[in-house]
Amino acid sequence: MTTLYNDPAEFAEEQLLGFVDLYSDRLRGVPGGVVSHRGPDPIVAVVVGGGSGHYPAFAGLVGPGFASGAVVGNIFTSPSAAQVYSVAKAADQGRGVILTFGNYAGDVMNFGIAAERLRREGIDTRIVLVTDDVASSDVVEQRRGIAGDFTVFKALGAAAAAGADLDDVERIGNAANAATRTFGVAFSGCTMPGAHEPLFTVPDRHMGVGLGIHGEPGIHDAPIVPAKELAGMLVDGILAARPDSDSRRVAVIVNGLGTTKYEELFLLWNEVRPLLDAAGLEPIEPEVGELITSLDMGGCSLTLTWLDDELERVWRADAYTPGYRKQTSAVADLKPVTFGAGDSDSLDVPAPSAAGAALAPLVRDGLHEMQRTLQRNEDELGRIDAVAGDGDHGRGMVRGIDAAVRAVDALSDAGPGWMLRTAGRAWAADAGGTSGVLWGAGLEAAGDALTDSRAVYDADAVTEAVTAFAEAIVDLGRAEIGDKTLVDALLPFRDALAGELTGGAPAVAAWAAAAEVAATAADGTRMLTPKKGRARPLAEKSVGTPDAGATSFALLVGALETLVNASVSNEIVQGKED
Amino acid sequence: MTTLYNDPAEFAEEQLLGFVDLYSDRLRGVPGGVVSHRGPDPIVAVVVGGGSGHYPAFAGLVGPGFASGAVVGNIFTSPSAAQVYSVAKAADQGRGVILTFGNYAGDVMNFGIAAERLRREGIDTRIVLVTDDVASSDVVEQRRGIAGDFTVFKALGAAAAAGADLDDVERIGNAANAATRTFGVAFSGCTMPGAHEPLFTVPDRHMGVGLGIHGEPGIHDAPIVPAKELAGMLVDGILAARPDSDSRRVAVIVNGLGTTKYEELFLLWNEVRPLLDAAGLEPIEPEVGELITSLDMGGCSLTLTWLDDELERVWRADAYTPGYRKQTSAVADLKPVTFGAGDSDSLDVPAPSAAGAALAPLVRDGLHEMQRTLQRNEDELGRIDAVAGDGDHGRGMVRGIDAAVRAVDALSDAGPGWMLRTAGRAWAADAGGTSGVLWGAGLEAAGDALTDSRAVYDADAVTEAVTAFAEAIVDLGRAEIGDKTLVDALLPFRDALAGELTGGAPAVAAWAAAAEVAATAADGTRMLTPKKGRARPLAEKSVGTPDAGATSFALLVGALETLVNASVSNEIVQGKED
Repeated sequence: MTTLYNDPAEFAEEQLLGFVDLYSDRLRGVPGGVVSHRGPDPIVAVVVGGGSGHYPAFAGLVGPGFASGAVVGNIFTSPSAAQVYSVAKAADQGRGVILTFGNYAGDVMNFGIAAERLRREGIDTRIVLVTDDVASSDVVEQRRGIAGDFTVFKALGAAAAAGADLDDVERIGNAANAATRTFGVAFSGCTMPGAHEPLFTVPDRHMGVGLGIHGEPGIHDAPIVPAKELAGMLVDGILAARPDSDSRRVAVIVNGLGTTKYEELFLLWNEVRPLLDAAGLEPIEPEVGELITSLDMGGCSLTLTWLDDELERVWRADAYTPGYRKQTSAVADLKPVTFGAGDSDSLDVPAPSAAGAALAPLVRDGLHEMQRTLQRNEDELGRIDAVAGDGDHGRGMVRGIDAAVRAVDALSDAGPGWMLRTAGRAWAADAGGTSGVLWGAGLEAAGDALTDSRAVYDADAVTEAVTAFAEAIVDLGRAEIGDKTLVDALLPFRDALAGELTGGAPAVAAWAAAAEVAATAADGTRMLTPKKGRARPLAEKSVGTPDAGATSFALLVGALETLVNASVSNEIVQGKED
Repeated sequence: MTTLYNDPAEFAEEQLLGFVDLYSDRLRGVPGGVVSHRGPDPIVAVVVGGGSGHYPAFAGLVGPGFASGAVVGNIFTSPSAAQVYSVAKAADQGRGVILTFGNYAGDVMNFGIAAERLRREGIDTRIVLVTDDVASSDVVEQRRGIAGDFTVFKALGAAAAAGADLDDVERIGNAANAATRTFGVAFSGCTMPGAHEPLFTVPDRHMGVGLGIHGEPGIHDAPIVPAKELAGMLVDGILAARPDSDSRRVAVIVNGLGTTKYEELFLLWNEVRPLLDAAGLEPIEPEVGELITSLDMGGCSLTLTWLDDELERVWRADAYTPGYRKQTSAVADLKPVTFGAGDSDSLDVPAPSAAGAALAPLVRDGLHEMQRTLQRNEDELGRIDAVAGDGDHGRGMVRGIDAAVRAVDALSDAGPGWMLRTAGRAWAADAGGTSGVLWGAGLEAAGDALTDSRAVYDADAVTEAVTAFAEAIVDLGRAEIGDKTLVDALLPFRDALAGELTGGAPAVAAWAAAAEVAATAADGTRMLTPKKGRARPLAEKSVGTPDAGATSFALLVGALETLVNASVSNEIVQGKED
């Protein structure tokens, strides 16, 4: 959705005004676009362009080492010949002009008309067309220009900045285009300012293969695949259309179209990288990010440019523009940190007592039961948490219990206290988040209280462990009853359990009664206003929904009735039975 | 939608692997996060952190002039104390450690536990908390940290890079936080990897006021307002909570959350800037872009930091990280281009003949009729174009006719030929795109053919003007019948009109018959496969939908029956009536 505008019809002009104001120390607005401030020596003017909506392309690529000027059309619309002419005139430094743009009919016409007019006025003007999109045609000359714009523009800009003459700059630009191939996929369409529907949609769980960058849908739809598979598809698609080059060095772009974010692109790069290695290609200074966008479109593309020495030089060159900055010297002299393998606690596991050894499998079973319960409730806990929080509670709890179960399953011959300690440490280390640190600390404290060496694990042992669990959480979280946190279910549970056991209830009945109290208390948090945690700023929205931490606690103690039952039937945990 | 992943549970780890590989020349992965390679002199280690999903925060801010290390938690989840400890240990250079993060309970706990452990090992460790979100609480200490993270982290990193000692770095970081205020709005929620629903939704045409950056919804919902009004809301919100400072200089961040794109943020800046001026504030090197994101969330925020000399120095300082680069020297010595006011053609309008003067108002009326027709059909033309094109045809045509009407309405005493020439030039200059250049050239040619000086504007004049219109478009576009373009309706129209007029039909009847032919021909393009224009790569999808350019042409000649009718009733355009 494009949301920020005044009059949709003035979007392109108004965003350009803001851009020009922002970078007025290094470029200026001229009729039709922007031109860079000038360095001491005149250079060939590289004028890029096309429609708006592709930031950093095209205005964001104006600056030292890159374009001298950018023509800025309306959204996804070729600028007029008059705009191209105006920007080129302002950018010209007496050494000739390169007009460069993606291969679209409107751009070809308008830049072409402007080039003729410039030539008539004695300004030597060349056109370098970008035709990198392998999905758009089998005939290279008919291909669209998409993310490969970046590579070709950069080659031209770097050659011009290095002082090359017009013939050389043109030659290098054409060589860059000839060596460049792009293949991409669209996940979702973009929405023009003022529009309520995207320009195109992709069927649910599908992607448009062979994306365009002006709101054109993909050439055909296919089901969305995992990143690893997509990486294979993109690399294969490009290699099938590879240019006639025996170079092993390739410049690489993994480009995001707008809503496919950096984290996703890094993840994709993690899959692309080994495939390039396997193809015998050496990636040279890959660029992974949003370089040629299409408003808020979802999608990504892979671009490879087969490099000779000259193309490698211009690809590696420094540049400094609003939207792209490279300065090799800034990191050239840094040295990697070296550090040791870390001080992992590799203590020997102490041998438990007979009673401890007997209880241990049940603790393990209990953790497995907790894991099943949390996995089953992950989505619902996330939903509850998202009402006024960040929606990560289900995910965080599952990560925690998964780590805990993994760590405990790796132990052999450990007692119940050691197991809980191990589970708590693993939980805190892997889950992160508030719930992670609280559950981690709580389980560790419960393990410390339980110990491995008791002769008998009776009601006192259970009470002590639960009390230690609760104390650790209260100490760390500093929440009180009524703050709408885990504590609102935890303390009533602890009190009910202790009361029942002290009153002589059998362990099974005591636990069941306390679990019931916890469930009621957790549900009761729905009427509370949060005073701690991420939900606090959203206090108002939170009313009516129970606290996610209290809810998961109640679910877990409910699930552990199984464990307590089993323990009692094995006569290990003994209530004070009459 | 977060789309690129393998196992959603491994998203954070896998994206970090890709990131570390990409920037392995300047940073390295360590258990729990990343640390920067080191410069020659040891500096205070500034360790930033929090969950994943905020790129460039937090790992993207590691590098010279910024953070020494970043702890990387799971998505939107605090890292564990063990992770914080591990990264801080690796980042420590013997001059002490600053742990800095936004104020969230989980982060406060985990970073706090790590700080205690580091201190126990003799590493002097300080905590600098970010609390910039004015919407989250009236009490400064209870506020969340959002985009102000960037300002505070940068202040710390710049101070450390300049060689300051731990006390000074800590003091400057706390001063930056005390001087920083952020206020933001959310337009749409973000979707976690593997999830099919966003973490929150905002009601249609609404925004969540007081956004969070972890998928928390806004604190309350309000209708979306134009950018100018939103700018006022953000500036007012911050000024109402301004810190106790009499400085007029402010560092500014206009931050995008993920799908609110650069163009939108520039447009917003264009509205924020004058409001800051009006408030007597001088923006210092404003940053407008995506600095602290929340996956694919829609939204934006404004951050102001009231600067004293020391804070201004650290704000202006250079930095070079994967996600943020500043190098003052790169643009310091550039000089602005100067150029004249441009050679606008301010020719005197030649006086028309009597017949020309009589026809002129009807040409003007015809253009107005075309404007109404295009405005009425804008959405539908866009929809047709979006099937296999870029969806801009309706918008482009409306821009063109709007410019043409504006230019013609500004003329006085011009003849019909001059009017059409003026309309064509304005159309081409403002509309851009293929249709803009074609319609512009066509109208200009028609005006040249029509001239202002005829004694009588008869059927021949109409035929000549229409022929010139068609020739200009065919010459420029080089499309042929069957290519699925405007030409498929244009040439049949021209032929039918000439045939009818030659055959002696009255002008009204001839035009009506030709317009009917054009409509049929335009509709007939639905069975064609495109061979020109942006629809070509999407040939397959295009079949079944008529060409947008042929459709708009047919609509317009249909609408112009009114003009022809009026002309004839005024006996100016005369068919060869029997």
